[in-house]
Amino acid sequence: MSATKELKVRCWIDIDGKKFFGPGRAQLLILIEKNGSLSKAAKEMGMSYRKAWAMVEDMNQRGQQPYVELHKGGTQGGGAELTETGKKVLATFQKMNDTITKTVQEHTDEMLGLI
Amino acid sequence: MSATKELKVRCWIDIDGKKFFGPGRAQLLILIEKNGSLSKAAKEMGMSYRKAWAMVEDMNQRGQQPYVELHKGGTQGGGAELTETGKKVLATFQKMNDTITKTVQEHTDEMLGLI
Repeated sequence: MSATKELKVRCWIDIDGKKFFGPGRAQLLILIEKNGSLSKAAKEMGMSYRKAWAMVEDMNQRGQQPYVELHKGGTQGGGAELTETGKKVLATFQKMNDTITKTVQEHTDEMLGLI
Repeated sequence: MSATKELKVRCWIDIDGKKFFGPGRAQLLILIEKNGSLSKAAKEMGMSYRKAWAMVEDMNQRGQQPYVELHKGGTQGGGAELTETGKKVLATFQKMNDTITKTVQEHTDEMLGLI
């Protein structure tokens, strides 16, 4: 059996030396967009509602503008949606990640062949 | 005072799901090459000799070929040098990292301007 070799890459943004936005938060925004609900997004990520809510709060407070709008109550038990800023941040992060992933893939054969 | 925003990227290689080679080990190889000594390289990294030695052993055992050759004894108290494989792995990793860093830099202004 030969070993499984993987070339990995991770990109994220720090604000004042503290993690602010990366793949996990991008995924949370994707699932909020998809579900229109923070509790459903949290569930799909296998994360507690409390933790997902804290992530949204942190983005909304430390970002230049809020990324997620939370609606209370209603027949659907409240909902969540991305703001224009949230959509732009997510799209730009995804575009950048795609470019980086392609760059890494171009080096994969050479790199893993040597390792 | 405005916040310090940084876009960060990290690239590494896993073997069988376990970290094998990344920026820390690349730096250790650079310092072994520079100093010709594992103890001096460890010192310059602010790392114990024991830990640096374990990193070298892991690379030498899990890599296809050893990356570092350790020489015992002698008037200089032994020495360390990169093998041809070690040099190639380091050079390829650095080249890949430079390309990824450039890719990230091209997205920095757009990304951090939005955050």
